[in-house]
Amino acid sequence: MIQRIEGGVCSPKGFSAAGVAAGIKKQGKDMAMLCAGVPCTAAGTFTSNRVKAAPVLWDRDRIREQGQAQVCVMNSGIANACTGEEGYEACRDTAKIAASVLGVPEELVLVASTGVIGRMLPMDRIEAGIRTMAGVLSDQDAAGTDAARAIMTTDTKKKETAVTFELGGKTVTIGGMSKGAGMIHPQMCTMLAFITTDAAISSEMLQKALSADIKETYNMISVDGDTSTNDTCVLLASGLAGNPVIDSENEDYETFCRALHEVNAYLARHMAADGEGATALLEVVVQGAADHEQAAVIARSVVSSNLVKTAVAGHDANWGRILCAMGYSGAGFDPEQVDLTLASRAGTLKIVEGGKALGYSEEAATQILSDDEITVTADLHEGSESATAWGCDLTHEYISINADYRS
Amino acid sequence: MIQRIEGGVCSPKGFSAAGVAAGIKKQGKDMAMLCAGVPCTAAGTFTSNRVKAAPVLWDRDRIREQGQAQVCVMNSGIANACTGEEGYEACRDTAKIAASVLGVPEELVLVASTGVIGRMLPMDRIEAGIRTMAGVLSDQDAAGTDAARAIMTTDTKKKETAVTFELGGKTVTIGGMSKGAGMIHPQMCTMLAFITTDAAISSEMLQKALSADIKETYNMISVDGDTSTNDTCVLLASGLAGNPVIDSENEDYETFCRALHEVNAYLARHMAADGEGATALLEVVVQGAADHEQAAVIARSVVSSNLVKTAVAGHDANWGRILCAMGYSGAGFDPEQVDLTLASRAGTLKIVEGGKALGYSEEAATQILSDDEITVTADLHEGSESATAWGCDLTHEYISINADYRS
Repeated sequence: MIQRIEGGVCSPKGFSAAGVAAGIKKQGKDMAMLCAGVPCTAAGTFTSNRVKAAPVLWDRDRIREQGQAQVCVMNSGIANACTGEEGYEACRDTAKIAASVLGVPEELVLVASTGVIGRMLPMDRIEAGIRTMAGVLSDQDAAGTDAARAIMTTDTKKKETAVTFELGGKTVTIGGMSKGAGMIHPQMCTMLAFITTDAAISSEMLQKALSADIKETYNMISVDGDTSTNDTCVLLASGLAGNPVIDSENEDYETFCRALHEVNAYLARHMAADGEGATALLEVVVQGAADHEQAAVIARSVVSSNLVKTAVAGHDANWGRILCAMGYSGAGFDPEQVDLTLASRAGTLKIVEGGKALGYSEEAATQILSDDEITVTADLHEGSESATAWGCDLTHEYISINADYRS
Repeated sequence: MIQRIEGGVCSPKGFSAAGVAAGIKKQGKDMAMLCAGVPCTAAGTFTSNRVKAAPVLWDRDRIREQGQAQVCVMNSGIANACTGEEGYEACRDTAKIAASVLGVPEELVLVASTGVIGRMLPMDRIEAGIRTMAGVLSDQDAAGTDAARAIMTTDTKKKETAVTFELGGKTVTIGGMSKGAGMIHPQMCTMLAFITTDAAISSEMLQKALSADIKETYNMISVDGDTSTNDTCVLLASGLAGNPVIDSENEDYETFCRALHEVNAYLARHMAADGEGATALLEVVVQGAADHEQAAVIARSVVSSNLVKTAVAGHDANWGRILCAMGYSGAGFDPEQVDLTLASRAGTLKIVEGGKALGYSEEAATQILSDDEITVTADLHEGSESATAWGCDLTHEYISINADYRS
């Protein structure tokens, strides 16, 4: 049994965290640190954008070379993207400072940044921030929450969660935190998610579990169709739970994957719900598909459509836009077989059958669409595969946030 | 020499038009007719959306079977999409009525619709509209303008243009009209463009000229990333100019293609500028590319980015978003070679060189971005190919229009 618990990145054994205001943003917490008591097995997935931020390149190199990490230093406010060689040197300097302050090898320090593209990090403030955080590191949940808050940019809510489960008679925990809000259309993984676990697991199995799961979680959300330069998901395993080491695709691995999915799906879903300007989470389930890829492509096309998203903002059951977005997804299907159903806490209503409108009540549809969590289910009647994608509505607030982001 | 003249679909010899209010929309003109004095050679390109509106299927079948057409009946307000067999029958009935009223064969009547998806056409009003239009058909420019106005939905400006040029000592004219505004991200051709010419040209050459040119015009614009179910571009050639028939890729064909491009590029550009809620036309030129496809993919990715579009709305030179959208386009390039230049009537400013910010004045950049026609040029420094795409800014007005479209 996988049980959800209060907590986040500090819930698994061996992790402490901190979050402070270092003066990189105009106000609020803007630097976070995650620190393990022992070197951890590390896995990571990063943006597929050809323009990759310096910290993405740094982390990718470290994880590739060592498969291990012990510390992550993160900042919000400045993305350290499009900063060339100087930006990469800023990552190295950050790692050096953290390594010397915390007494760990430089190559076990990962870095992550999120914020405005094209600006250089103020290294004096970064250094001061690292020293402050080193003094307040704590393994209490409140410290994890401080870190989750410090990586936020236009997010309105912190995103963290944790689950526990049993492996070989030992209690294992996975915790995670993430930030989202804008430039969210992950192609590899999403902008800043950090997952910790005390599971004992090999580097190879850890990467395999992460790479498989992001396809069903972070890669299935979209806020605005823009794939960030900084997308980063890092998973650290301290091994302190004392379970038999997972080094093959055995039953324990399957259990670990299911628990990891709980954490990633929770974070992904909450990133979509807290998309810039969003008032509603839009969940799109495509079922009855001939294969999973077809279902996933169609689901993602619908949650990415500006016209579907504005219709949701207007509580308008403009289902033609849903069918239209399915149609241009690139995946094949027969439009005249499609059923569409709307659902939320307000009720469930089938509105389209065989590609044509049923005589449904617009009032009932509007009531369903006025909730803050809406599910659209499209049944293709072609097979038994399915996929789920998450997005949000597109509102005036999104325009306000992004027309004046740098001011 | 290709000369732009005042006019539209009625400018070439042999075409009359009409536009009337038939009660399909709540108010305003909503039906148009285009009628040639003789059967015309016809070419067409249609949406690649898997969900194709009934009139798209009807026109595609007619043009495939005959390569000829004489009459087009168009309506705005209802798209006749997702209407199944009944929708296709509505096309046939419309063609039948027009054929009988105008005394032309039914199979030479094309139809086109734009508006809300999923509703049935009110055939009594369609029939009354056809009878009214048959009585007021005229070959004067004012009638072409009536038609151009009648196909508008959320468009704020009519779009029509015409050019003349010489072929074999004869004056040849091409005229056109289109409508755009929302659900504009053409994959094959754009929502409703009608081009007329009096050139004598074979059906094969006409289709070849049209198919080639839409790739550089309508297929290079985006308003909101949503590819319509109704995209239709029809080109009719009456042959009445008396030029030597173009039946191979000779010099006259090249001249015809250049003139056709003038008309299509004008209409495409104006559709982008009049995108729903738009206050500025955004032109993106990618140059120095190794091949044309690479340039086109990158240019289109930038004009489609919500974050670039909101930055333009805010007159904010947030160039990181431009580089980011280039990066996730799927096309290869070296980000550290890219130069970016902003230009408008207010001036020209290079802001990025070799992938990094130059020390430019934000005030000067904002001044350039405050114009209503903005050009972003990205130089990849890889070769000599280039491509241009057109889009618009994303504003509060887009949200207002689309959150409440059906009310």
